[in-house]
Amino acid sequence: MPAQALCDFSRLCVHTITTKPWTIEEATERYAAAGVQGVTVWRQWLQRRNIAHVGQALRAAGLSVVSLCRGGFFPAADAAGRRAAIDDNFQAIDEAVQLGAPLIVLVCGAVPGQPLEVSRGQIADGIAAILDRAQQANVKLAIEPLHPMYADSRSAINTLRQANELCDRLDFPQLGAAVDVYHVWWDPELKQQIERAGRSGRIRAFHVCDWRTPTEDLLNDRGLMGEGCIDIRQIRGWVEDAGFAGFIEVEIFSNRYWAMDQGEFLERIKQAYLGHT
Amino acid sequence: MPAQALCDFSRLCVHTITTKPWTIEEATERYAAAGVQGVTVWRQWLQRRNIAHVGQALRAAGLSVVSLCRGGFFPAADAAGRRAAIDDNFQAIDEAVQLGAPLIVLVCGAVPGQPLEVSRGQIADGIAAILDRAQQANVKLAIEPLHPMYADSRSAINTLRQANELCDRLDFPQLGAAVDVYHVWWDPELKQQIERAGRSGRIRAFHVCDWRTPTEDLLNDRGLMGEGCIDIRQIRGWVEDAGFAGFIEVEIFSNRYWAMDQGEFLERIKQAYLGHT
Repeated sequence: MPAQALCDFSRLCVHTITTKPWTIEEATERYAAAGVQGVTVWRQWLQRRNIAHVGQALRAAGLSVVSLCRGGFFPAADAAGRRAAIDDNFQAIDEAVQLGAPLIVLVCGAVPGQPLEVSRGQIADGIAAILDRAQQANVKLAIEPLHPMYADSRSAINTLRQANELCDRLDFPQLGAAVDVYHVWWDPELKQQIERAGRSGRIRAFHVCDWRTPTEDLLNDRGLMGEGCIDIRQIRGWVEDAGFAGFIEVEIFSNRYWAMDQGEFLERIKQAYLGHT
Repeated sequence: MPAQALCDFSRLCVHTITTKPWTIEEATERYAAAGVQGVTVWRQWLQRRNIAHVGQALRAAGLSVVSLCRGGFFPAADAAGRRAAIDDNFQAIDEAVQLGAPLIVLVCGAVPGQPLEVSRGQIADGIAAILDRAQQANVKLAIEPLHPMYADSRSAINTLRQANELCDRLDFPQLGAAVDVYHVWWDPELKQQIERAGRSGRIRAFHVCDWRTPTEDLLNDRGLMGEGCIDIRQIRGWVEDAGFAGFIEVEIFSNRYWAMDQGEFLERIKQAYLGHT
């Protein structure tokens, strides 16, 4: 059964990249004033900042830090590149600790022209290499399967089945999966793979936006919830039936929305959250 | 094992849409002069033509008619729309008979906002409704899974596994699948689903092009073989190991290639066919 409509903002989380024109300080103030309850911080927003102070300011404003975006990007053409990727993930874990983020979302990576099977192996090795550090830091990790249209350069993990299989294989309590409706809505196995992830207590994050018809840009033409063809409420019902009760994270990359007044955009996000999520 | 390089054009087929600026008469003459051996005709190229004469002219020029593109698009919001789709597929079967095409490729369709499960049911019903007519006409049908980025509006059949399952369910000798590397290259199950399709003698067509990084347009930015990240030769090896020995069909939608001299483009296709297919 589809979930019931949301009637308040107690589970609303916004990704800083959704309101890309705002700095972390602006986002902190504006999200809090708008009644947003959670924030997922993209690492770019932490550059030239005292990260611990950013985390304190977010909490002082009443915001929960939901996750840090993003780790991953493990595949590389040579060993030095793969080592650098692991080091960068160690740094992301340090940043998550400083920020007070309980979770890092992993966009796993791909190298154009490198066989997907090779990238998939490097991803497994890369995640394996950071699991102990994540556990010591008490930071959880979520493998986010990306839409197959990103298999060339962003992630060779393209279905929730693959994420589940990787979690089974690495078998580590720190590791789970993120379900982003944009990436997985088309998958005929989605419901069953969500159930499978739920049985292992593995769903760590739930991201929403919508798929516009036509989509005019592969990266930055995501829609506001309700503006496209994804039955977001149905998928929310599936993840909740599978035991997920965390924040609902609005993650929208959109040249058209980034060009408008971000305060007005945030109000539209709130309406779309109540009406179509 | 990847297949060996192709050393002649005996299996080279070109889709008329690949050289979109050419009429069917121009394509007939230019393909034949270039040594292309097969042609897949898109239905738009038959408008205002005597279809039987087109087929005769193609064969007189030494070209094999490989297939007619495309039937399908079964889902619709109402029964009248679904009935019209079936009628259009009957017409496609008639056109295939007139043209002398042994096969129709099915792009199955989707209705934006209609649940994918509903569209998938309508697709199964639509195909079931045309199977007898196809058999009477001695025309085969190939379900072409489309890339998940087309699930909103072009096809709710997005993996070869789905095509195989649909073939199993409808269980009709007339029905098979088309493997287009652009749509399926990312799929972690691709090899096993090709083997499965092969075991049932179900692979009816093999389409090639490449995935460019970055892809700048969801529809019309396909690459020439070798220009992108798809290991086409490996996938060709898989379909050939699975028993497919038919034409290798070059199907490229590309604003950039359609803008260039089509004769020069055809020469580049031939080079890419030998070098990267």
